[in-house]
Amino acid sequence: MTTTISALSTPKASASFEETTIERRDLRDDDVRIDIRWAGICHSDIHQARDEWGGAIFPMTPGHEIIGTVSEVGSAVTEHQVGDTVGVGCFVDSCLECEACKDGEEQFCSKGVVQTYSAEDYHGEVTYGGYSRQVVVRDHFVLTIPDGVDLAGTTPLLCAGITTYAPLKRHGVGEGTRVGIIGMGGLGHVAVKIAAAMGADVAVLSRTDAKKDDGLAFGAKDYFATEDESVFDELEGSFDLLVNTVGSAVPLDSFMGLLGRGGTMVNLGAPSESLETSAFSLLTKRRALEGSMVGGLPQTQEMLDFCAEHGITATVEVISADQVDDYYDKVVDGEVRYRAVIDAETLGEAPTS
Amino acid sequence: MTTTISALSTPKASASFEETTIERRDLRDDDVRIDIRWAGICHSDIHQARDEWGGAIFPMTPGHEIIGTVSEVGSAVTEHQVGDTVGVGCFVDSCLECEACKDGEEQFCSKGVVQTYSAEDYHGEVTYGGYSRQVVVRDHFVLTIPDGVDLAGTTPLLCAGITTYAPLKRHGVGEGTRVGIIGMGGLGHVAVKIAAAMGADVAVLSRTDAKKDDGLAFGAKDYFATEDESVFDELEGSFDLLVNTVGSAVPLDSFMGLLGRGGTMVNLGAPSESLETSAFSLLTKRRALEGSMVGGLPQTQEMLDFCAEHGITATVEVISADQVDDYYDKVVDGEVRYRAVIDAETLGEAPTS
Repeated sequence: MTTTISALSTPKASASFEETTIERRDLRDDDVRIDIRWAGICHSDIHQARDEWGGAIFPMTPGHEIIGTVSEVGSAVTEHQVGDTVGVGCFVDSCLECEACKDGEEQFCSKGVVQTYSAEDYHGEVTYGGYSRQVVVRDHFVLTIPDGVDLAGTTPLLCAGITTYAPLKRHGVGEGTRVGIIGMGGLGHVAVKIAAAMGADVAVLSRTDAKKDDGLAFGAKDYFATEDESVFDELEGSFDLLVNTVGSAVPLDSFMGLLGRGGTMVNLGAPSESLETSAFSLLTKRRALEGSMVGGLPQTQEMLDFCAEHGITATVEVISADQVDDYYDKVVDGEVRYRAVIDAETLGEAPTS
Repeated sequence: MTTTISALSTPKASASFEETTIERRDLRDDDVRIDIRWAGICHSDIHQARDEWGGAIFPMTPGHEIIGTVSEVGSAVTEHQVGDTVGVGCFVDSCLECEACKDGEEQFCSKGVVQTYSAEDYHGEVTYGGYSRQVVVRDHFVLTIPDGVDLAGTTPLLCAGITTYAPLKRHGVGEGTRVGIIGMGGLGHVAVKIAAAMGADVAVLSRTDAKKDDGLAFGAKDYFATEDESVFDELEGSFDLLVNTVGSAVPLDSFMGLLGRGGTMVNLGAPSESLETSAFSLLTKRRALEGSMVGGLPQTQEMLDFCAEHGITATVEVISADQVDDYYDKVVDGEVRYRAVIDAETLGEAPTS
C-alpha cells in the first residue's frame, strides 16, 4: 500500500514540468510523514533536471529544501509528533553506522548517502523530492524548525544555509574574521547573512555592482565589483576566508591572491572545469583550497537554531507550481532575488492523510 | 671593513662552480659570526643557480642549510656565545615587527624576508650562502644545534626538516594519523622519519620500488610504487594527510582520491605547471589542497630539538667542494641518497677570525 500524492515531475532531461502524482510509502516504524508547505528551488535541482551531472533518474520530482507539518509518525518515532513543523534537506537516509555517520557527517556516509530525489534508496525505491504535497522520511533525517520563524524564508536554509554555515563554522569565523563571499546568489546571499551574524567583517565579491545595496543590507561591510580587475590588486592578502559560491569557473588564481597568510578558499560549486591554481599562490602565504558539501544532521539543526536566534532567513520569491519552468531559466540567468520557493498549496490536491 | 672568506661561487646561470672569495661584513651589535662546518645542497639551490625561477643574483654562493661554530658575537647578542654550535636556514633577516614576524612566521614577513643567498638585504647588500667558510647573520636568525647530534646529518634539517615538520605539526599528526609521503628524496625521506617519530602510520608513495627497503627502514609502515596505477584504486580514501614533496608535476587528482574525509594534501614543491584538481575531488570528501613554505624561527628550533630527542637526522652523502657540480646533476637525476652535504673544510682557506 502506498499513498498517491500530487507532485511536479519532469519526464526526461530538460523537459517541462507536469502536474502528476507520485506514490509515498506506508510508514515504517522510524518514518515521519510530512505534509509539505514550502519547497525551495536550488540551482542543483536544475543541474539534475537537465541531467548535467549525469545519472539522473526520470521521471524526476526535484526539491531538497522542504518545510512542512508532520501528519503521521511511525511507532518508534520519538523526536517528532503530529503537528510539528519540520524540515528535510539534501538527503533522506544513510547507514548511521560508519565513522562519518557517527561523526554526524552523514553526507559522507561510506555506504553512500541517499539523496532526497533522483536516487535509489537502500530498499531499491527511487526517491522523489519536495516539489510535491507530501514526503515520507526516516526520522533521523527530519529537522526541527524553530518556533516563530518565517517558514518560506527558512526553507532554503535546508540546503543553502547548511552549505554555507558548515565551512564558516569549521573555520572558526567570528568577531573580526575577514570573510569574502564570492558570488551573491542563492548560496552567497545566505553566506553573507550568516557570516555577518557570526561577527565577521564580510565583503561581497560580485561581478558587477548590481547587488551592492542588497549586499550591504544583508550585513556586508564592503562590496566589490570584480569586473574592475584593479580590485584584485587593491585587496591582495585581505581575507582570512573566501567562500566561493559560484557554480561556474572563476579566475581562481586571482581570487587566491586575496587571501592573507594561512587563508583558505572554500569552494562550494562544482564547475565541470578543473580548479587550477599555481603552486606559488599556495606556498607564498600558506594558503589552502578546500571543498565543502552541505553538512550533517546535527550541524543542520545547529544552523537552523542559529538562524532562528539571529533572525536570518533567505530572501525569497514565493512562486506557484506553474512558474517553476520560468524560474529555472531565471535561476540560470541570475535573475532571482535570491531564492525561489514554491508554495506547495498551489500544487494539485492536498493530501488526505 | 669586511672579512674576505673562501667560497664556492657560480658566475652566471648554469655555469660551473669556482673557488673564489666573498666578503663578510663586520659585526653589527646583533650579529653572529659563524665559521661554517657543513652546508647542505637543497634542490632549490639548483633552481636558483640555474635561474629557473627568475631573479637570481650572480655571482651566487648558494646554501641555506648551514651548521658551524660561533667565532664572534656582537655586543647585543645574548643567545649565542663563541664556541656554540649553531645553524642557519633559509633566511637571515625580516622586519620582526609585522604580524607574521610576531607570530613566529618570519618566512611570511610583510616587509619581505631576506633569503640566505641570492637576495638583496635591507641594507642593500647581496646575501651569500653556506657554500663558504664563514657567514655573518643577525642573531634572531641563528638556531641552536642541540648537543650530541650528528652535525652533517642535522645540517639538511635546517631546510628539509622544517619544511616537512611544519605541515605535519600544523595538522596535528600523531598516534594513528594516516600519513602518505609522496616522493622520497631530500624532503621526502626526512618527512618519513619525522612523521613516524610523531607516531603516525606512514606510507611512502614513490614512483618505483627502488627505495622500498630504505623507506621501511626510515620508519614507514607501507611503501607503494605508484607506477602501478592500481595503487590509486587500492588506496582510495586511505589517508588523513598527504605531503607532496615532489618538485615536478604529479597526477594531483589521482593523489587527491587517496585522501579520506576531511583530508589535506600539502604541496611543498613549486612546479611551474598549475596545480589542477576537480571540484568534485574536493567536495566529495571535504578535502583540501594546501601550500606550505619552510617555517619560522621558533618552529625551526622546536624541530631541531624534536629531531635531536628522537635521533632523527637526514641520511646524507658527505661530499667535498669539488664535487658540487657533479652532485647538482645527481640531485636532478634523483641519484643522491638522500641529501648531499658539503664538508666546508674541503673549501679554500679556513677563516682567520
